[in-house]
Amino acid sequence: MVQINAERFLADLHELRKIGAYKTGVHRPTFSPQDMESRHWLMERLRECGLEASIDGIGNVYGRHKGPGPHLLVGSHIESQNYAGWLDGALGVMAGVALARAGLPVDVAAFADEEGHFEGGFLGSRSMIGDLTEAEIDRSRSRNDGTPLRDALAAAGLAGKPRMQLEPGRHKGFYEMHIEQGTQLEGQGLRVGVVTGIVAIWQWRIQFQGQQDHAGGTTMAERKDAGLSAVRLLAAIDQEFPRICGPRSTWTTGRISLDPGAPSIIPGSADVLFQFRDVSVPVLERMEAGLRALVQESNRREKCPATLTQMSRATPAICDPAMMATLDQAAEAHAPGLWQQMPSGAGHDAQYIARLMPASMIFVPSIGGISHHWAEDTKDEDLALGCQVLASAAEKFLAG
Amino acid sequence: MVQINAERFLADLHELRKIGAYKTGVHRPTFSPQDMESRHWLMERLRECGLEASIDGIGNVYGRHKGPGPHLLVGSHIESQNYAGWLDGALGVMAGVALARAGLPVDVAAFADEEGHFEGGFLGSRSMIGDLTEAEIDRSRSRNDGTPLRDALAAAGLAGKPRMQLEPGRHKGFYEMHIEQGTQLEGQGLRVGVVTGIVAIWQWRIQFQGQQDHAGGTTMAERKDAGLSAVRLLAAIDQEFPRICGPRSTWTTGRISLDPGAPSIIPGSADVLFQFRDVSVPVLERMEAGLRALVQESNRREKCPATLTQMSRATPAICDPAMMATLDQAAEAHAPGLWQQMPSGAGHDAQYIARLMPASMIFVPSIGGISHHWAEDTKDEDLALGCQVLASAAEKFLAG
Repeated sequence: MVQINAERFLADLHELRKIGAYKTGVHRPTFSPQDMESRHWLMERLRECGLEASIDGIGNVYGRHKGPGPHLLVGSHIESQNYAGWLDGALGVMAGVALARAGLPVDVAAFADEEGHFEGGFLGSRSMIGDLTEAEIDRSRSRNDGTPLRDALAAAGLAGKPRMQLEPGRHKGFYEMHIEQGTQLEGQGLRVGVVTGIVAIWQWRIQFQGQQDHAGGTTMAERKDAGLSAVRLLAAIDQEFPRICGPRSTWTTGRISLDPGAPSIIPGSADVLFQFRDVSVPVLERMEAGLRALVQESNRREKCPATLTQMSRATPAICDPAMMATLDQAAEAHAPGLWQQMPSGAGHDAQYIARLMPASMIFVPSIGGISHHWAEDTKDEDLALGCQVLASAAEKFLAG
Repeated sequence: MVQINAERFLADLHELRKIGAYKTGVHRPTFSPQDMESRHWLMERLRECGLEASIDGIGNVYGRHKGPGPHLLVGSHIESQNYAGWLDGALGVMAGVALARAGLPVDVAAFADEEGHFEGGFLGSRSMIGDLTEAEIDRSRSRNDGTPLRDALAAAGLAGKPRMQLEPGRHKGFYEMHIEQGTQLEGQGLRVGVVTGIVAIWQWRIQFQGQQDHAGGTTMAERKDAGLSAVRLLAAIDQEFPRICGPRSTWTTGRISLDPGAPSIIPGSADVLFQFRDVSVPVLERMEAGLRALVQESNRREKCPATLTQMSRATPAICDPAMMATLDQAAEAHAPGLWQQMPSGAGHDAQYIARLMPASMIFVPSIGGISHHWAEDTKDEDLALGCQVLASAAEKFLAG
């Protein structure tokens, strides 16, 4: 039975936390001096474990196991959101280091810019699976300050370096450990989540065309109030979606804009950003059909025509059942009754790596569900337990 | 029977239309060179009618009848909204001139800045009834470009001039003729509206406090979605208000702001601007009670507390029944069956003048209901008919 060195694992995490420290969190935007310092620090840790460490032309840090296979790939990202938490990303990378230290035949990856500081997002994992073109790199700019990605790469000393690709057939699977970024585990007193899949986001824009008029001179019967038509459709979604959704579906209206937005003017147009998420394509399709039916109904009832536009239609990443089973068994062995299966509502590098090999994820609780904020935290004992569950699962999967 | 000179009335209107002409409308913001040109042009017209013309320290132009009473006051405003219509305001002023030309004992007023180019609004009519302080003039600035009102008055040559007050007991009543700014008359093929009152606007702000969260990591059950609570309350208002409103009530949600307004973030707060209007205080109070009950219900059902703040609570101006009766009779005489009583959904100078004397208004149709836009228009025959109805009503009221 493989045993991680929990003390060393936590010590590594706390040492990494010092690089770019901000309050109790860290500020390590992609390719900043702090981010690059953390990448070089990581390469030293990888070498300590006996791995062959390298950094590639998009900033991916990779630790390659020198011994014979079968191998696993373990990792996540090491940069942070701005002024954000110390565990988001870093936890999955250092869990890989912990598994390597424990003697498991793992390659460890820190994928660059999962956090999307640069346009495009997921640059590192997408590059490694062959999904990032040079043209996209040429175009991409920092969302923080507009710096071209090429300039940022040059400033980080990465210009001209080759971009590495995953070696076909080398890995039996990919494991990513991550904080939950929600309160489902904490709320139920659970300590481990076995991720079933990473939800796809289907993002929509709904526009209503009415007629701008004076709020005093126009009777209720005469009005074409685009805002009111929007409210009615959103209320209908609120009524209908709980009946057609899956058990873990979410749907969100993030923005409602009424034009011109003045107190005494009947809105001439309304613009709504609406999205839903699920891990199941049939559930996503059912919600789409429900949405389209409600928009059609709105267009039959209302004086303000609604136009539905799909902004994004991603494919959910389903976690590998055999890998999930190893996590289930390891979780039950180390934390009997204190774990559950759950989808990931947020995106992760695993969703791209899953295109090339079996992939799965393990979650540990987030205190108060705080995420993308410097106050993000997880109890040391949950970090250690999660890493041990991961190691046991990996050992089992390698042997299977 | 008094008879207006319709040809002359229309010729006056079309001559005034040339000052600040913009497309088929006019651009005469308060105290602009075009506005001041129109005021001086008006003073010449008033003198032509034998009235004693003056302009006061806030820009009011006044034509005082030199003969014995009883007198009537007739008027409106002469400045326009930006790039707006040729009749809004100008019609009521030139109707006064037409009545004076027809020999009726009327004083004619053009009240400054009914359109509210400067903060405060209704400066002229409020000044004339003693409702505008020097301190408010000191504070007020242009909503167009921030120019202090004092500077604008000085540039218009009005600095240091006294502000005139209405002479107590001089007037038997005030008549204001105006375009409808809606389509109720046009829609029913009617040619005259006798105004029953000017609605009061009760303006509200409703704020919802939720919790900003990641739209992926937070289950539907865990959410405190301020935007959703807002949509539910607005949908409840949409259901409930038609049952409690008066026959001519209006209610309008002019703005819905969700914070932060991003596609993947559950809104942490929502801010709604909501208003209702009616001419009847009991109806306004019933709608207020309905709104308060719905907010209370929202606060019992929802996880996001709603706070209701009243931004304005005006008093409706009721038109004088005896003056209305003269308009009813004159309308029936000149346009049998082609007129109706109706409230004014928009504000007018009459609502302030009504505090000092009996007041009433007559509406003529707006083509397509277009208002506050250069395309605003009314048929010449409707303008002439409305002015004749007004003259006949005024004659009758003076005799009564």
